[in-house]
Amino acid sequence: MERNELLVVGSMAYDDIETAETSGERLLGGSASHFSLAASLAGAVPSIVAVVGDDFAQADLDLLAALPADVDGVVRAPGKTFRWGGRYSKDFLARETLFTELGVFESFSPELSTAQLNSEIVFLANIHPALQREVLNSIASPRFTAMDTMNLWIDITRDDLIDVISRVDLLFINDEEARQLTGENSLVAAGKAILGLGPAHCMLKKGEHGVLLFSGGAVYPFPSFPVEKIVDPTGAGDSFAGGVMGRLACEGCCDTPALRRALLTGTVMGSFAVEGLGVAGLRHRRQLDVRKREEMLRDLLTAPDAD
Amino acid sequence: MERNELLVVGSMAYDDIETAETSGERLLGGSASHFSLAASLAGAVPSIVAVVGDDFAQADLDLLAALPADVDGVVRAPGKTFRWGGRYSKDFLARETLFTELGVFESFSPELSTAQLNSEIVFLANIHPALQREVLNSIASPRFTAMDTMNLWIDITRDDLIDVISRVDLLFINDEEARQLTGENSLVAAGKAILGLGPAHCMLKKGEHGVLLFSGGAVYPFPSFPVEKIVDPTGAGDSFAGGVMGRLACEGCCDTPALRRALLTGTVMGSFAVEGLGVAGLRHRRQLDVRKREEMLRDLLTAPDAD
Repeated sequence: MERNELLVVGSMAYDDIETAETSGERLLGGSASHFSLAASLAGAVPSIVAVVGDDFAQADLDLLAALPADVDGVVRAPGKTFRWGGRYSKDFLARETLFTELGVFESFSPELSTAQLNSEIVFLANIHPALQREVLNSIASPRFTAMDTMNLWIDITRDDLIDVISRVDLLFINDEEARQLTGENSLVAAGKAILGLGPAHCMLKKGEHGVLLFSGGAVYPFPSFPVEKIVDPTGAGDSFAGGVMGRLACEGCCDTPALRRALLTGTVMGSFAVEGLGVAGLRHRRQLDVRKREEMLRDLLTAPDAD
Repeated sequence: MERNELLVVGSMAYDDIETAETSGERLLGGSASHFSLAASLAGAVPSIVAVVGDDFAQADLDLLAALPADVDGVVRAPGKTFRWGGRYSKDFLARETLFTELGVFESFSPELSTAQLNSEIVFLANIHPALQREVLNSIASPRFTAMDTMNLWIDITRDDLIDVISRVDLLFINDEEARQLTGENSLVAAGKAILGLGPAHCMLKKGEHGVLLFSGGAVYPFPSFPVEKIVDPTGAGDSFAGGVMGRLACEGCCDTPALRRALLTGTVMGSFAVEGLGVAGLRHRRQLDVRKREEMLRDLLTAPDAD
């Protein structure tokens, strides 16, 4: 693969979303969609492995292809595309799932092309840990692998999950999941316990409160970009991961300093993502917008020296 | 007053504290105590205005005097010292007040010496807004004034509170209080609404998630120092304020760049504070410890450039 290419295996979905101020139906969603928009904005070319139903709009596939992204690995199967409906509380601190219709995603079995089997940078979005492991095992010689997960897998298939976590380089996980997985209340202790499971790095996501990066023997705190008005937090975590992994793929380097720089890109993507409904916060952004906000955030974080 | 002196008006108390792992009785506490220990560690000399009862240990006054701090303004009144008892949940996310005995603090009427009336840097810790205003009005020509508050005053004496907020340069407030005061869910919107009340600057405290500084037309996010094991969060906010104000007093400058630098010192003090029971996390620290942790935190926040 080219230096700035990266593999993403995840879901493509249509979301119905309600917030106190807005709502939308059949919005393009799913982890692979949010991730790919962000990775592309970061300058990378995502190669997507996912499944959609026969109801999936060609226009949405075209949108992704034009990022550009490689959508040859998006299989169209007979049946309905994965659908999810959710409603957020006014302060966005609580989310109620209104419905989940797995559709063709229920029998998703990732199939990788020869080029994809030779991927160097790999992101396994939130799917069943057994599928994540299957993909991981099939990649010939990955240089850097990362994964996300969710509370469901911690509940119902903990052993599989811990096994696949032990095989990746970087785990993305949110604060609640990290506490649930490790039994530690302290997020610093939870992150360290996660590194004890095997991965060299962990990005522990705290939503609007930023991220803790555990890497190279240190814990790097990173705040979120101050967003005045959140429109829709759906996909913010996947967009963050897309920014991080996209940046790493472009740099062609995945050590601790590179991961620290990638926090900036991931954080900017997360902030764009929450400013619009569905993928609207990301899809009209350009790489120049990313560079401007990265620079703004870097300036906000660097206090000038005293005279 | 000398360049590194600053006035603090607040409470001195004895606290009974229970956490899942430890407990203590009659621990030196109160906003003025925590603030003064931190301000002193930051290199400043706090001049304290407070009241204690005839049960207050001379050893505790001596401890503060030796910081050094000016304790001539600590009045010993007939009756009991303010006492507070609290119990934290295992994850420190909830705190239950077990008892509050105001004692001599109930009739606290701050009396300032001639030197204190000429204070340039002033911190009004969390006391009744009418008392805060009285102190503020009595200072001849303050150069920089700051205050803290609590939910109780927002509930029962909102107009007085808003009046005194309009007269200070900097408001310290936590996230819940900021939402309650402004009716805004978004913390960025809440901070901006607070500046609309009059103060030039606002430090919006998010506990373990850091701070948002609103100043000079920008919003500066600042993460907390990653603490692995919280022992007791009591007084962390006052210690943060003590670090910030102490640093400002030492620099002799209170503009936006100085406030941004002071975030570092305040954050370090907050992290020391939570690492011990009562004031134990701060009292055995030295200025060298502060400089070391400030340097460590600055390094954690500054990602190296790519080659």
